[in-house]
Amino acid sequence: MEKKQILAKNVNLLAEISQQEKTMKTEGGKQPSVIVIERIIELLKQIIFPGYFGAEIRSRESRLYHVGVSMEALEKDLKEQICLSFRSFKGEDVKEKTSDEIALKFIDTLPEIKRVLYTDIEAMSNADPAVTAYGEIIFCYPIVQVMLHYRVAHALLRLGVPVLPRIITEMAHSKTGIDIHPGAQIGEYFSIDHGTGVVIGETCIIGNHVTLYQGVTLGAKKFTYNENGTPVNTPRHPIIEDNVTIYSNSSILGRITIGHDTIVGGNIWLTESVRPYSKIVQQKAVSEAFIDGAGI
Amino acid sequence: MEKKQILAKNVNLLAEISQQEKTMKTEGGKQPSVIVIERIIELLKQIIFPGYFGAEIRSRESRLYHVGVSMEALEKDLKEQICLSFRSFKGEDVKEKTSDEIALKFIDTLPEIKRVLYTDIEAMSNADPAVTAYGEIIFCYPIVQVMLHYRVAHALLRLGVPVLPRIITEMAHSKTGIDIHPGAQIGEYFSIDHGTGVVIGETCIIGNHVTLYQGVTLGAKKFTYNENGTPVNTPRHPIIEDNVTIYSNSSILGRITIGHDTIVGGNIWLTESVRPYSKIVQQKAVSEAFIDGAGI
Amino acid sequence: MEKKQILAKNVNLLAEISQQEKTMKTEGGKQPSVIVIERIIELLKQIIFPGYFGAEIRSRESRLYHVGVSMEALEKDLKEQICLSFRSFKGEDVKEKTSDEIALKFIDTLPEIKRVLYTDIEAMSNADPAVTAYGEIIFCYPIVQVMLHYRVAHALLRLGVPVLPRIITEMAHSKTGIDIHPGAQIGEYFSIDHGTGVVIGETCIIGNHVTLYQGVTLGAKKFTYNENGTPVNTPRHPIIEDNVTIYSNSSILGRITIGHDTIVGGNIWLTESVRPYSKIVQQKAVSEAFIDGAGI
Amino acid sequence: MEKKQILAKNVNLLAEISQQEKTMKTEGGKQPSVIVIERIIELLKQIIFPGYFGAEIRSRESRLYHVGVSMEALEKDLKEQICLSFRSFKGEDVKEKTSDEIALKFIDTLPEIKRVLYTDIEAMSNADPAVTAYGEIIFCYPIVQVMLHYRVAHALLRLGVPVLPRIITEMAHSKTGIDIHPGAQIGEYFSIDHGTGVVIGETCIIGNHVTLYQGVTLGAKKFTYNENGTPVNTPRHPIIEDNVTIYSNSSILGRITIGHDTIVGGNIWLTESVRPYSKIVQQKAVSEAFIDGAGI
Amino acid sequence: MEKKQILAKNVNLLAEISQQEKTMKTEGGKQPSVIVIERIIELLKQIIFPGYFGAEIRSRESRLYHVGVSMEALEKDLKEQICLSFRSFKGEDVKEKTSDEIALKFIDTLPEIKRVLYTDIEAMSNADPAVTAYGEIIFCYPIVQVMLHYRVAHALLRLGVPVLPRIITEMAHSKTGIDIHPGAQIGEYFSIDHGTGVVIGETCIIGNHVTLYQGVTLGAKKFTYNENGTPVNTPRHPIIEDNVTIYSNSSILGRITIGHDTIVGGNIWLTESVRPYSKIVQQKAVSEAFIDGAGI
Amino acid sequence: MEKKQILAKNVNLLAEISQQEKTMKTEGGKQPSVIVIERIIELLKQIIFPGYFGAEIRSRESRLYHVGVSMEALEKDLKEQICLSFRSFKGEDVKEKTSDEIALKFIDTLPEIKRVLYTDIEAMSNADPAVTAYGEIIFCYPIVQVMLHYRVAHALLRLGVPVLPRIITEMAHSKTGIDIHPGAQIGEYFSIDHGTGVVIGETCIIGNHVTLYQGVTLGAKKFTYNENGTPVNTPRHPIIEDNVTIYSNSSILGRITIGHDTIVGGNIWLTESVRPYSKIVQQKAVSEAFIDGAGI
Repeated sequence: MEKKQILAKNVNLLAEISQQEKTMKTEGGKQPSVIVIERIIELLKQIIFPGYFGAEIRSRESRLYHVGVSMEALEKDLKEQICLSFRSFKGEDVKEKTSDEIALKFIDTLPEIKRVLYTDIEAMSNADPAVTAYGEIIFCYPIVQVMLHYRVAHALLRLGVPVLPRIITEMAHSKTGIDIHPGAQIGEYFSIDHGTGVVIGETCIIGNHVTLYQGVTLGAKKFTYNENGTPVNTPRHPIIEDNVTIYSNSSILGRITIGHDTIVGGNIWLTESVRPYSKIVQQKAVSEAFIDGAGI
Repeated sequence: MEKKQILAKNVNLLAEISQQEKTMKTEGGKQPSVIVIERIIELLKQIIFPGYFGAEIRSRESRLYHVGVSMEALEKDLKEQICLSFRSFKGEDVKEKTSDEIALKFIDTLPEIKRVLYTDIEAMSNADPAVTAYGEIIFCYPIVQVMLHYRVAHALLRLGVPVLPRIITEMAHSKTGIDIHPGAQIGEYFSIDHGTGVVIGETCIIGNHVTLYQGVTLGAKKFTYNENGTPVNTPRHPIIEDNVTIYSNSSILGRITIGHDTIVGGNIWLTESVRPYSKIVQQKAVSEAFIDGAGI
Repeated sequence: MEKKQILAKNVNLLAEISQQEKTMKTEGGKQPSVIVIERIIELLKQIIFPGYFGAEIRSRESRLYHVGVSMEALEKDLKEQICLSFRSFKGEDVKEKTSDEIALKFIDTLPEIKRVLYTDIEAMSNADPAVTAYGEIIFCYPIVQVMLHYRVAHALLRLGVPVLPRIITEMAHSKTGIDIHPGAQIGEYFSIDHGTGVVIGETCIIGNHVTLYQGVTLGAKKFTYNENGTPVNTPRHPIIEDNVTIYSNSSILGRITIGHDTIVGGNIWLTESVRPYSKIVQQKAVSEAFIDGAGI
Repeated sequence: MEKKQILAKNVNLLAEISQQEKTMKTEGGKQPSVIVIERIIELLKQIIFPGYFGAEIRSRESRLYHVGVSMEALEKDLKEQICLSFRSFKGEDVKEKTSDEIALKFIDTLPEIKRVLYTDIEAMSNADPAVTAYGEIIFCYPIVQVMLHYRVAHALLRLGVPVLPRIITEMAHSKTGIDIHPGAQIGEYFSIDHGTGVVIGETCIIGNHVTLYQGVTLGAKKFTYNENGTPVNTPRHPIIEDNVTIYSNSSILGRITIGHDTIVGGNIWLTESVRPYSKIVQQKAVSEAFIDGAGI
Repeated sequence: MEKKQILAKNVNLLAEISQQEKTMKTEGGKQPSVIVIERIIELLKQIIFPGYFGAEIRSRESRLYHVGVSMEALEKDLKEQICLSFRSFKGEDVKEKTSDEIALKFIDTLPEIKRVLYTDIEAMSNADPAVTAYGEIIFCYPIVQVMLHYRVAHALLRLGVPVLPRIITEMAHSKTGIDIHPGAQIGEYFSIDHGTGVVIGETCIIGNHVTLYQGVTLGAKKFTYNENGTPVNTPRHPIIEDNVTIYSNSSILGRITIGHDTIVGGNIWLTESVRPYSKIVQQKAVSEAFIDGAGI
Repeated sequence: MEKKQILAKNVNLLAEISQQEKTMKTEGGKQPSVIVIERIIELLKQIIFPGYFGAEIRSRESRLYHVGVSMEALEKDLKEQICLSFRSFKGEDVKEKTSDEIALKFIDTLPEIKRVLYTDIEAMSNADPAVTAYGEIIFCYPIVQVMLHYRVAHALLRLGVPVLPRIITEMAHSKTGIDIHPGAQIGEYFSIDHGTGVVIGETCIIGNHVTLYQGVTLGAKKFTYNENGTPVNTPRHPIIEDNVTIYSNSSILGRITIGHDTIVGGNIWLTESVRPYSKIVQQKAVSEAFIDGAGI
């Protein structure tokens, strides 16, 4: 069979709606746009941290102009993506008016989101002796990136918007290696240092002044299945109370409670609740040996 | 020495072919293009998941047009990059005809790659109670990204194409934090949740219906060296049989076999084979202590 | 309240300088530009690895032209960003001449940075049996990306440039999942395989011929606080001597010394110094059990 | 007054809706987009001359794919711009369905437009001895550009679309210096050589096999005004019958008829009708004089 | 001589500063940037005609934000280009403060420029029976384009800025075929229909309510030379008083005066002054002849 | 018939190779790329006028680097476009080596092209009293643009390259309104002021120190046809000897000779040869009349 025929055959095979696509109902059609959602996040950064992201702002007077222009663009893009999310993932044709209302309700939460993000920045600054300026954190710490994505996604989720919140947190996951489900509830003054590998599950509840280090998992221990064998979405992730610090690579699994003012050391595997004011450390788990240089 | 001289001096020093470059034979020359390879992946996404990636597709009729246009562009770019890979990394001047044939053979595997990717999506959907729609997985779960890159790279590797496969999986590694070597063999219905930090080595063999969580390493325990001290590329990574689940941050190392229908808990360090139907869990490794709030 | 009013109200709220911004002194103003810094890194790649990054170079003669053009652009961008860094983060109006001098001093270190990066490539090649060509490492191994960022950032830090170094290493962190503080001191022939989740703290000192695997933390055990409760930036991360290999997911914490020619196995939690020629392995920490297929 | 105040004052003055804007009803609002209209023209070129404009087409089979993709994009953009034109310039809120119908009717004329454009190309080839290949005309002769714009604009005008046609012909005017009003009626086998400065007025009627050279004006002699002093849009431009050639820089003005098979020489000023088979030439209008090199 | 040598030889020849460049003092160096100047014009369009150019503006409130953002960008770009123009073309190092002042003075004229441009639009509307809406003129008539460029360039010229004004009018020349020297003085309610080929010289003085058609030249008849043979820049172009209309392709040459309320017909060659209320028409200059179809 | 059917029907109709395309042999296929040719011209501007076009050049040393990089890119693009031109328009498969040789021969003429362009700039400076600096001419006078295009196109034509030269001059025509056929022969110190509407035919021969103004046509009077009715490409445009000035809107037609040191006034229609040292002026052709303000 020659080239043209091979190409044409595969074009036809791949263009057909396959049985799998039919079964899964994933035939495509008009979808939310990843590019537009990235622009939405970019606009939110410009609105919440004017001068740090987007155009240079040369005077206090012109903050108003810049925030105003970004807000107008945000409102338009957001309304449209909300509408598309409902259509694609709920099968419902949300009226344009509803998307409009949801977008406005979301915009009405932005000043509060900004305030809380600044508590995260303050917490981060207190946690890391290497910080030399607040601006440094806004500019380059993954915590700001990931928490902006999460707090925005969480607000959209609470307004009932489907899938969009998850797309937004996955964008942060890809950039930072920190995977926070938009359904998690996280208090103020939250900080994550380094952060690569952190996972925070859908039903987590986290208090104020909590600090995590890289590789911490707040996960599920097991799933409950219904009679069809489908996993059921029940509370299955930990509750972390106020003033808790969890060091690197520890895993806290299941619907347990870590009491307030507790410190969990690194590399801990924890599946049972812990009383307040606890300090959890690993048993000494290494043996030393003098060797003559051979490989392991 | 003044500015112009400093600049000119360093330009000359850096433009020279250094002794290291000569020794390592890395003088540059015409190379595969990272930008073109990214475009190839983008085209493959549009061909395999039409409507999700690339332009909106407004009717079933026009899937044919879109897949056709993407396929034509794919064929051209791929042929060229295959040719460049051989020239740069094998020192052989592959005939244009050969690159052409390899590209066609690869295109001929696309319908099968699409079918298998849909089994991965189905597995992911079964593993995560937070999923609300299949489209959500295609859109934003790292598993789709990483498996598309891996399955494409693996197909190219089997056709003998040098280095290109590795570039493709490293792109996924950068975006998802999941590092799968293109040489690994992975069955159907494969899923990875969260995924940051997962490493799957070159000689791994993985069956069907296997699920991994974040931070899992399927690695080598030690290398064999030849008489020149160069490490030898022998089977050195684990074999994972069907229906195995491995929880977060566990390391399975060396050419061992994890028998089918086995569960490996989180934070496990495993260097010996395990019989089928096993369940491996960590010993309780923490001690609790009430403390008065001082840091660790 | 209708739409226009809601938008206008929030624009006004968000455009105001909030009390938090005043307290933290983060009102924006002219800042270093992330986009320009990304271009600086791109230019450095073209200067250090001509032919691999940037335009194709078709003859040895034209390496001179390409390196020259990139150098001119580098010098201009760098000078400007150095100037902006001092202004934004030191509150000092560094004279243009000073920025100029610093940029030139940095450029004068480039041939040495290139030489050392090639030792890292050589080390990587020796560590990974899957490597088939040096060019493959330059092209797609995260080690090259992350070490170029780190070695450049470290050189800028030594010249006293504020924040810029940190922005540069965070860019590499985002792309590779490897987080190296620009203040760390790292010798030659350094390699990291896979790398996701690696953290190397600000006061680490690392010798020559050191190899790390994914998930390794070289971190602090505790902070010292001054009388105001602010953490103090003292030496608090480990010293790793020559010829040390640390396997995946191990944590080395505190100002301890890992003696030369030592091997630290995977999943180790280490907070005490180790003599030279040591070999640290984990105690057997798993229990096996035959089970009948039920979930954990 | 200092800088900030001057800027703020002028921003306020310019942002206000001026009295002129109110009087003229030109306050802005959602308008047709020049950028989208340029894309529409680009798509039409790709549809009508596949392979010459847009992506390279590598086989006959893939013409179908390319034309299909361009058509889908065309239909979407066009529908939207038609809708915006009615809203902006007719004050009527055309139902989406109507725009849709108009767009489809227009698309249904494309094969005929293509056929007629090919007659223009054939005429051009016959008129210019410098032509070496038909493709050369499609590629670089302004006649193709200007006639594609005109014929498309004319078709839209006949379908009642406001202003859009005029925007489309002005784009061609800007690129070629040839200004054809979309209302003019132009037959087949029409050609214009060089063309800069050609003007063809709104009520012109031009037969088949007509050729114009640069600088030819087919204009109005005088306007009729109504009682308010507004010029009335009556037939006021010439009728040019079949087989007429008009040489460079001649002006034919008013509702006169140039009979078929007539030649009008260059630099003619003509305001009266001419019988068929005429040949109009200029009287000798220069005096020669031998001079000794002084300026005029 | 082989390829590399030919390339290298010509690179060297062309990179050298040639004798001509030395003589003419055109060695390059930092110049005003055509790309930035195009952006300046784009910003001016957005400021003067908000909603027609630049982003869609969705409410009256947000005109303020958009104009404010554009103004800030304008001020920055303009200041810089003014500074570069002085440095490149006057050899003077204008203080940054001076450029700043000039930019502000220019910005202070914008409301007046806007007002006058609206008179041009009104005049155009009265002159062309084909106009259906004022917005149509703003959108697509070359008069708006060319007069915006000219009026802006003229204002900059009056503030003493070198060369920049000329670059700005040449941009309009390239787009519209209308060449107005920035030094010309043009009153209100000015209109040009079609316009291709219009030339208006440096020392022209044009009153109010003047209308020109395509191909009209308001030029110089002869130059005065000084003792070195260099042409002297004296008043040498016509004065056109109020209420004058000049039809297509007429040339008015030399420092003559066309009295108010005069009509000049098409194709007129005029080198002497004309009293007010005149009407100039061409003598009948064609001879008709019946012919039998032979070419000229 | 519904929407999908209308679209599909027209897609099929337009994708088919029409009878006209077959007859004219214009089916598309791989063509020279207008975008690449525009890049070629951009590179030539950077090579010939370094510092004026392309990147800023900050020192004399780096002219070498910039010219070198541009030359390398030029050589590659040009070779490819030459090859495509032969294949598309001559039906011959020129060997890659031949295209290579032609590109090199062309590059070898660049220093001479640069020298001659500088004579044009000098001539323009002498002709226009409004010029304030040589750089002003390079930056914004259409003469530089059009002559660079023409002189480059002419050199390629002499090397036998088909169609490419014509595409290059049409680009200049579109930007400047000046239409010079690449076949024309034009001497040194050539200048055109304003220029819109100038046409210079294929077989023109123009001496040194010739100046043209806007609207001048150097055209053919009539064509010779062969027995098939095809026009024959014989010498049919004027010869203009040294030191001739032709004022605006004059037409010189046919294979006549304008003797050296001649001045042709504006609006002249000339079809007979003129002796050296002539001065041609128009007879007075207007009648004046006092009128009372009525329209023409």
